[in-house]
Amino acid sequence: MMSVIADEGDDRETDVRARMVRSAALLFGERGFARAGLRDVVADSGAPRGSIYHYFPGGKAQLAQEAAQLAAASVAEPAEAKLDPIAALHACLDAWRSALTASDFRAGSALAAAATAPEDATGAREAAATGYARWSDALTAALRESGVRRKRAARLATVAMASIEGAVVLCRARRDTAPLDDIGRELEAAFEAAQRR
Amino acid sequence: MMSVIADEGDDRETDVRARMVRSAALLFGERGFARAGLRDVVADSGAPRGSIYHYFPGGKAQLAQEAAQLAAASVAEPAEAKLDPIAALHACLDAWRSALTASDFRAGSALAAAATAPEDATGAREAAATGYARWSDALTAALRESGVRRKRAARLATVAMASIEGAVVLCRARRDTAPLDDIGRELEAAFEAAQRR
Repeated sequence: MMSVIADEGDDRETDVRARMVRSAALLFGERGFARAGLRDVVADSGAPRGSIYHYFPGGKAQLAQEAAQLAAASVAEPAEAKLDPIAALHACLDAWRSALTASDFRAGSALAAAATAPEDATGAREAAATGYARWSDALTAALRESGVRRKRAARLATVAMASIEGAVVLCRARRDTAPLDDIGRELEAAFEAAQRR
Repeated sequence: MMSVIADEGDDRETDVRARMVRSAALLFGERGFARAGLRDVVADSGAPRGSIYHYFPGGKAQLAQEAAQLAAASVAEPAEAKLDPIAALHACLDAWRSALTASDFRAGSALAAAATAPEDATGAREAAATGYARWSDALTAALRESGVRRKRAARLATVAMASIEGAVVLCRARRDTAPLDDIGRELEAAFEAAQRR
């Protein structure tokens, strides 16, 4: 099953690096940019101490960028894999439900963390914008493929992304995944109605 | 016009306190809990140094709670004022558009900041949950009043809140208010369709 943060393969050098990006995506999502430290990323990923600047000469800002790219790949993948848009939507909602319950409602969006990172985190905001654009393109293409006209497809993709990102915050506040269920039903209905036009 | 953070009246003691909560709401929204310091709140509000613990014995966590309450009051007010749900929606979207452009896309949700505050920020998450519930109740009541059946009204209220909170993050990433326009059109269409049933 798809996870909110895709799990990469296993093979040494590249694997240490990939584990660090994955840990960064999880920690930035949970805590936001300011509160997720490089030390936490090293500890969580099991990487050797002092390896951060070996793999990421741009430091924390570079990690935030790559974490945003990984998060974008994870959410965009179901739609890019040519899933029906409703199936792609539910793959994403299911992944968030699992991540929230498995983390005791600490999981959060690494894309949102990058989008709201301080301005001195060079390239983090831009990486979030690029990541959201990738997700949007994937959803828009899936909706168009299913018969929704172009402008409507782009708007529905924005509503889906915004309501998923927002619902994760509502779920954390309530410690309850019901907001994801609610938006799932409404988005599914909106997708279906748009396909019939 | 409604602002995302309501402006309180002017009268000394209570006013210093109100200004501090207002500054806290703006700063927590922009920077998140970790990166908004008490010093920044004092500076932004023009309050006397050392006055934080006089007014807020619970410190930063108490400020985050009260900031969440103020933010909730601000977003819930249009619906609580018995506006038509579509008018209440647009009041909220307009306020966010203004706040984002006026802040050079730094404005953010103090409710989301409280929802994702660290666990040692006592009561912050609970205040976010209470704030979202107030906003949800107001929107649900407005939708029911306009003829939407109960369960649907509650779901649409969740979609509206989630997509507004998420769209603010998308706008910050893109430095562009278009995501708010997109969700506005789709939410308005969903509200209208639900009213006709």
